[in-house]
Amino acid sequence: MTDMPLNQLSLVEAIHAIERGETTAEAMINACYDQIETREPAVGAWQYSLTREQYLHAYRANQAFFQNSRLKGLPVGIKDTIDTAGMPTEMGSRLHVGRQPVDDASCVALIQQAGGIVLGKTVTTEFAYFQPGVTANPKNLQHTPGGSSSGSAAAVADCMVPAALGSQTAASVIRPAAYCGAVGYVGSCGEFSSRGIQPLSQSLDSLGVFARSVEDIVLLRSVLLSNTEVNNDEPKKPKRILVCPGSNVGESDEDMNAAMADLVVQLQHQGIETPELDSCDLIKRLVSNHETVMAYEVYRNLATERQHPEALSESFCGLLNVGANISRSDYLAALLNIGKTARWLWHQDPDIDAILAPAAPGAAPLGLASTGKPHMSRPWQAMGLPVITLPGLTNAAGLPLGIQFIGKARDDDSLLQIARWLQGNIKGLS
Amino acid sequence: MTDMPLNQLSLVEAIHAIERGETTAEAMINACYDQIETREPAVGAWQYSLTREQYLHAYRANQAFFQNSRLKGLPVGIKDTIDTAGMPTEMGSRLHVGRQPVDDASCVALIQQAGGIVLGKTVTTEFAYFQPGVTANPKNLQHTPGGSSSGSAAAVADCMVPAALGSQTAASVIRPAAYCGAVGYVGSCGEFSSRGIQPLSQSLDSLGVFARSVEDIVLLRSVLLSNTEVNNDEPKKPKRILVCPGSNVGESDEDMNAAMADLVVQLQHQGIETPELDSCDLIKRLVSNHETVMAYEVYRNLATERQHPEALSESFCGLLNVGANISRSDYLAALLNIGKTARWLWHQDPDIDAILAPAAPGAAPLGLASTGKPHMSRPWQAMGLPVITLPGLTNAAGLPLGIQFIGKARDDDSLLQIARWLQGNIKGLS
Repeated sequence: MTDMPLNQLSLVEAIHAIERGETTAEAMINACYDQIETREPAVGAWQYSLTREQYLHAYRANQAFFQNSRLKGLPVGIKDTIDTAGMPTEMGSRLHVGRQPVDDASCVALIQQAGGIVLGKTVTTEFAYFQPGVTANPKNLQHTPGGSSSGSAAAVADCMVPAALGSQTAASVIRPAAYCGAVGYVGSCGEFSSRGIQPLSQSLDSLGVFARSVEDIVLLRSVLLSNTEVNNDEPKKPKRILVCPGSNVGESDEDMNAAMADLVVQLQHQGIETPELDSCDLIKRLVSNHETVMAYEVYRNLATERQHPEALSESFCGLLNVGANISRSDYLAALLNIGKTARWLWHQDPDIDAILAPAAPGAAPLGLASTGKPHMSRPWQAMGLPVITLPGLTNAAGLPLGIQFIGKARDDDSLLQIARWLQGNIKGLS
Repeated sequence: MTDMPLNQLSLVEAIHAIERGETTAEAMINACYDQIETREPAVGAWQYSLTREQYLHAYRANQAFFQNSRLKGLPVGIKDTIDTAGMPTEMGSRLHVGRQPVDDASCVALIQQAGGIVLGKTVTTEFAYFQPGVTANPKNLQHTPGGSSSGSAAAVADCMVPAALGSQTAASVIRPAAYCGAVGYVGSCGEFSSRGIQPLSQSLDSLGVFARSVEDIVLLRSVLLSNTEVNNDEPKKPKRILVCPGSNVGESDEDMNAAMADLVVQLQHQGIETPELDSCDLIKRLVSNHETVMAYEVYRNLATERQHPEALSESFCGLLNVGANISRSDYLAALLNIGKTARWLWHQDPDIDAILAPAAPGAAPLGLASTGKPHMSRPWQAMGLPVITLPGLTNAAGLPLGIQFIGKARDDDSLLQIARWLQGNIKGLS
């Protein structure tokens, strides 16, 4: 047991410490609430949360169950676009203030059945699109936390909870995790149950998980897949990582370019091959393909909400307006090109283990009026690939500079094995 | 205007008659309620419905809106696995008696915005799987209506409403439409918003529509896609239809084989080429691939319900048990083979316009304890293809023998153009 404050333990570290009798779930819970009481007024990660007393009451009412459970009664945050039967789910929208779903989303039910307790609902941008909530970046309160899963990223990065769920349609997990300095994982398209997760775009939406170690992600993935055991495969050293410089996707700043270059040198020092992707236009085109598919589908999915433009933000109305005017043939052409590019990507070099790319154009921008630009995630999300962002790199001002590793579709397990190795062996990826 | 009883008019016929001043929406609504009052005690299509007075009150309260709308205030049935904010949604399950969702599914919102009125919720099997509801086949009350969208198929085939929504994971639209004698359409995977449709299996679920003409399907598809106009393309004569005999998929009876053979002769008489698919094993293997994917995903999606086995049917518990024991590698192998077969299918003969196959092994079986066998739909549903079944053929006992036409993924429009031509030009496909 380290001297680290309890709330800074990762989920797996906390579980092990409880199992070894070095601490208790209640001590860990109280440490999280201490942190929330100190920091929440400034960070604003929570849309709704249990009081400490409510939480402890829930824990004590089923203490034997929690003690024997996988997650030990430890707290989890849930993005407020994911339905919870016991708490409102307002989707960051004025239209849905006080909205109380009748069912838990399946992912919430699975977490609870494994002994996790939903501490609260985390702030999201309006309908998981661009209009920010109140959350600030815990690393520097003047900067955006990124979005749309702003509260989940901030709460985990600030050690208010060890883990939280989010969702990604464009960059809604990877970008806030990168900006706040958390591990963020997005599952392959179709990987997890989407029941009860309010959708934006059926071709693009994926469930995501925030934590402070890859090991925690592996555990939560196992819970979310209803596997009774964690896949105990060892961390796996990659042989060949395809490097996609930011310029292949769109704007990326000098800090990010320098961090990427340093990281590539480190990988090479470990004997890992790092060929570079030199097909700028193919990946770049996916950015606009993604925008087309998303806007077209959002317009149809938000059929009820678009009847109430007076209660929607300007940016969301703008998205709906774009979606209303996309022709079916443009939409289908975008889907077709995405599919073609996905097949091309992995056939051109079958030996690559993962792709390395910037998780965002740079560190979190100054100001809370925008959550930053999402283009760095659009190509991979369009193709439905599993992605993980690892924290550790920073710019001169000490703000996190997130990079992302992208895996093959539905081979999330291999990506996580590689990420575990990278987190343990590459300086700066901690 | 024909002398046909009003409730027997198709949706488009009724709309045109109202627009021409030959009848009124209220007359049409009353004719539907007359039919429901006469037949519902025997057919049992409705899980929940508005009374005539409630319906007319809703119509009159917004009469000007309905008169100017596309659907004129005419009634639509909604399968009881699709959430409705104004009516319970019980999913055919004892666990969810009285369950009242807070939101309308997007498909329901779109129908209502176009001037359709939800007359009620139609009977579904338990969670859209096998355990039957109370519905009987309106063509012969001793026979199953098929499932899982039993009530939607029966209500439309019996002229209680001109149209209804359903959903298909295995055979839940095509089979009941075929057994009851309605037109049944299943959209390509991903084609429509699935928001608020309670899912079974994210890789397989599709929204479906029941009506009494292909023209009606085209109109409702336009509404569900938020298109402001119907695609007015003319019916299109197909040049080449690939014939998949029932034996390529699994058991099919002599009545069905004879009906298929007759239909092929008719197509040939029209100058349509009818090559035969001779790849039995590839299509047959999709039946078991489909079963694997469905059981694996159902187990994860129904995470809440499976905590209450005492409130589930034996057949549903059986499905959950299968799903719990499917390994991830078997699940991924099934998905991989489905994708490979889908690419092979359309590449081996790029000139085919559609595939013809039996919609079910034969006519609706005797008895209400089972909804019949779903294997005839599993291969096409696994590949996410658009499908339409056309009624008209019958066996010696006068029971419907449904066949289905299968289109290319996301090219639902071409399939419906072809189906319009077939319905107008092939004897027996009415």
